[in-house]
Amino acid sequence: MEFLLSELAERLGATLVGDGSVRITGVSGIKEAGPGDLTFIADPRYMKHVSTTRAAAVIASENAHGCAKPMLIVPNAYLAFVEIVALFHPRDTAPQTGIHPTAIVGQQVALGKDVSLGPYVVVEDDAVIGDGSVILAGSFIGRKARLGTSCFLYTNVTIREGCTLGDRVTVHCGTVIGSDGFGYVRQPAGYKKVPQVGNVVVGDDVEIGSNVTIDRATFGATKVGRGTKIDNLVQIAHNVTIGENCIIVAQVGISGSVEVGDDATFGGQSGIVGHLRIGRGVQIGAQAGVTKSIPDGEVVSGYPAQPHIAAQRVYAASRKLPDLIKQVKALEEEVAMLRARIAKLSEEGSHE
Amino acid sequence: MEFLLSELAERLGATLVGDGSVRITGVSGIKEAGPGDLTFIADPRYMKHVSTTRAAAVIASENAHGCAKPMLIVPNAYLAFVEIVALFHPRDTAPQTGIHPTAIVGQQVALGKDVSLGPYVVVEDDAVIGDGSVILAGSFIGRKARLGTSCFLYTNVTIREGCTLGDRVTVHCGTVIGSDGFGYVRQPAGYKKVPQVGNVVVGDDVEIGSNVTIDRATFGATKVGRGTKIDNLVQIAHNVTIGENCIIVAQVGISGSVEVGDDATFGGQSGIVGHLRIGRGVQIGAQAGVTKSIPDGEVVSGYPAQPHIAAQRVYAASRKLPDLIKQVKALEEEVAMLRARIAKLSEEGSHE
Amino acid sequence: MEFLLSELAERLGATLVGDGSVRITGVSGIKEAGPGDLTFIADPRYMKHVSTTRAAAVIASENAHGCAKPMLIVPNAYLAFVEIVALFHPRDTAPQTGIHPTAIVGQQVALGKDVSLGPYVVVEDDAVIGDGSVILAGSFIGRKARLGTSCFLYTNVTIREGCTLGDRVTVHCGTVIGSDGFGYVRQPAGYKKVPQVGNVVVGDDVEIGSNVTIDRATFGATKVGRGTKIDNLVQIAHNVTIGENCIIVAQVGISGSVEVGDDATFGGQSGIVGHLRIGRGVQIGAQAGVTKSIPDGEVVSGYPAQPHIAAQRVYAASRKLPDLIKQVKALEEEVAMLRARIAKLSEEGSHE
Repeated sequence: MEFLLSELAERLGATLVGDGSVRITGVSGIKEAGPGDLTFIADPRYMKHVSTTRAAAVIASENAHGCAKPMLIVPNAYLAFVEIVALFHPRDTAPQTGIHPTAIVGQQVALGKDVSLGPYVVVEDDAVIGDGSVILAGSFIGRKARLGTSCFLYTNVTIREGCTLGDRVTVHCGTVIGSDGFGYVRQPAGYKKVPQVGNVVVGDDVEIGSNVTIDRATFGATKVGRGTKIDNLVQIAHNVTIGENCIIVAQVGISGSVEVGDDATFGGQSGIVGHLRIGRGVQIGAQAGVTKSIPDGEVVSGYPAQPHIAAQRVYAASRKLPDLIKQVKALEEEVAMLRARIAKLSEEGSHE
Repeated sequence: MEFLLSELAERLGATLVGDGSVRITGVSGIKEAGPGDLTFIADPRYMKHVSTTRAAAVIASENAHGCAKPMLIVPNAYLAFVEIVALFHPRDTAPQTGIHPTAIVGQQVALGKDVSLGPYVVVEDDAVIGDGSVILAGSFIGRKARLGTSCFLYTNVTIREGCTLGDRVTVHCGTVIGSDGFGYVRQPAGYKKVPQVGNVVVGDDVEIGSNVTIDRATFGATKVGRGTKIDNLVQIAHNVTIGENCIIVAQVGISGSVEVGDDATFGGQSGIVGHLRIGRGVQIGAQAGVTKSIPDGEVVSGYPAQPHIAAQRVYAASRKLPDLIKQVKALEEEVAMLRARIAKLSEEGSHE
Repeated sequence: MEFLLSELAERLGATLVGDGSVRITGVSGIKEAGPGDLTFIADPRYMKHVSTTRAAAVIASENAHGCAKPMLIVPNAYLAFVEIVALFHPRDTAPQTGIHPTAIVGQQVALGKDVSLGPYVVVEDDAVIGDGSVILAGSFIGRKARLGTSCFLYTNVTIREGCTLGDRVTVHCGTVIGSDGFGYVRQPAGYKKVPQVGNVVVGDDVEIGSNVTIDRATFGATKVGRGTKIDNLVQIAHNVTIGENCIIVAQVGISGSVEVGDDATFGGQSGIVGHLRIGRGVQIGAQAGVTKSIPDGEVVSGYPAQPHIAAQRVYAASRKLPDLIKQVKALEEEVAMLRARIAKLSEEGSHE
């Protein structure tokens, strides 16, 4: 694949500075770039590398005066770069069109146009797969499950019966959507299972990482809002509702019936106790343990989670704690001594 | 599916209050219920919703005087409700009877009566599958593994060679039972693997969530006791012994050779250091880090885990720590000043 | 399988003490051993069991005088024992030689000698599988992926396109190597995905547990160094570089672009913030939350992670914090009283 720099300028709506006839054959980071590569500078601190990079041209958000390389000037250099990366690297996972002869498709399944089912895919009865959706090897679509258009499921994914994905949903390998929620009633003879008869509803443009688990609701639906991105090994329990455009980093655990507003961010390995409300735009630090509902816009961290600035003060202070204990002990001794001296003075005074 | 309320009353052994001829066509929560639904009140605080619910009838543990709806009075409303849910929603995962033509069954495999093997299931030589067990698509049963009667394995489950499941064991999608324990000996050239030649033994009525990992023992067996319930993404290391009727919430990690008594509960994301003993009925808080053995019946939380009430006092106190440091500094100054004044007084006294 | 003790002595280069004609038919721990078993003593505290064990013979690092059993004396008893275990228990997972008729092999795939592909394995175009590698049922090798010689992949493993494994790499069930890194750019309309066009490169003699996720790099490679061992349910993000002979215990999360030196050890459930450097030989405690780079050889624990000894002092001190608050309050009252008495004394003095 090869483009003239001027062609890329046009595609990005960028201002071209320098020679537009340079041939661009790839993209890379500014240090790794080789001849023919287009690179980018998003952070002004990297501007110093412009003189040493082997890249053929640079995307930046402002003109680097004295830069010997041709440049494309755009409002957001990183975003423009990402577009060029996508241009040079279309999804590289062999989305074969058509139904592999080993794919098993049940009865009354509605397959859209240009659907791809890889080897050993199983689609059960009454499922719906929207136009242009691709399902890779070994994945399983349960009865009455519904996928929108242009979904992409990697290998060994399970979408259990009755769950629904919107349009353009991506699910990575080994992820399980719609397994039973974890609900039991204690009886004298042991635990009795609470049937989990709801489903999972995933909105448009959601992306879900590898080996994630999202449980179906007891009743109703576990919901993941439009545009939300979920990293690997995340656990989302039954009856959780996640808003739109949330970011959930790897190994997060969200307990049952939690409600999350739009634009919330969960740091890696954080955990949320059941039945809480996490407000819009809340940011939760990595490994935080959230034990109370959080108002809109708040930033929290630590265990138990508290406002981030307070948490930082507490953790900084805790490092002084061993010395503080010594200080208090010394103070107690000093005060005891002073008390004795005062008693003595007082006695002397009374003798006089 | 439709029942008269009087039929359900009989089935539950409930006291019917009001019109038994009401037709019940479904079940739901008190807020979500529609006409024809049976709902329940387990918590007296929800009694206020009785006047506004659209449900056709209500299960409760005491008569709500003035309730316009017919009621079923039972000792445990939630438990009765769960039974009715199970009645209306039998397991909905297409347990096809019979062996799918693509299932591969090895030599000398003992398949019980009414066993179901889904598409692309692999059962290796000398395995035993008990009567009525169901194994869904893509699951793998290794050599000499043994499943009891009425087990239910969802998709892409692996039961490795020689492991055994009791009767009525449920295993959700992507779970791995019997992978190698994590054991190495350091040598100058690097780590040498310690062969893991034991197995995993799972008791009757155990349920195991999705993408769980339970490692086989180095020697002997890793054991999960009868009736224990394990949530998604849990890690159980080699040579662990879990008692009966334990509850292990999502993302818990239990290190090698830990022994857990009956009826213990593990909060989500908690972790247990190797070789400890967790007593009967112990309750471990979410995210707790357990570094010492815990006596029977104790409730612990925090990192490092300590008795829950003490942990709560410490966390509450820690929020006062930044102020405490200021207080101690102020006290030190005050005491220094007092010391100076006493010295002065003392001197004045001696001058007199 | 049966050996004379003298044969095993020769194999280990051990000094034989006692009767070499004893027949050894198995191996086990000193308490579990039965007649015919060879056992070992690595810890001198276990020497007392020598008189009661039912084992036929004992491996030890020094002669136990008065031991009635024949012994094999070696420099490292545990290591010698592990070798004997491996002798009696060769890998027991039916490594069928040959390509199962249901395995699907793409075009231009280079299959080495004695490669085994289990049922329902899929190998995409242009992949390379080295001599003697074994891939069990349901696993997937993406386009242009490369496996070295003598690799062993258990069931339902995914190696995505373009990723490479060295020689003698073991990957357990359900693990995903090469899923997309978690990278997005925020735009007004929502998050835009940053294409992840790099790969994962795994060195020789690496072992990776079950349901692990290792993401491909944005550019370049996510790297796992030679001899490193990774436990179950670990998350390794894009562009991470792990050194050689590291130990990564279950449920660890390593964020994007972290660099880890050789011989580092990560305790279970610990987490590392992105872009940090973890030095050679660093030891990270279980559940630690690492927020800063760590110099070579340091031992850290806690949240936020700090040198282990300091962390232990802080946690020990924190248990005294509720009492400390009371002590400080009592001191304040005492000091106020002393101040009043001094004021009184001072006043009395001035009156005189």
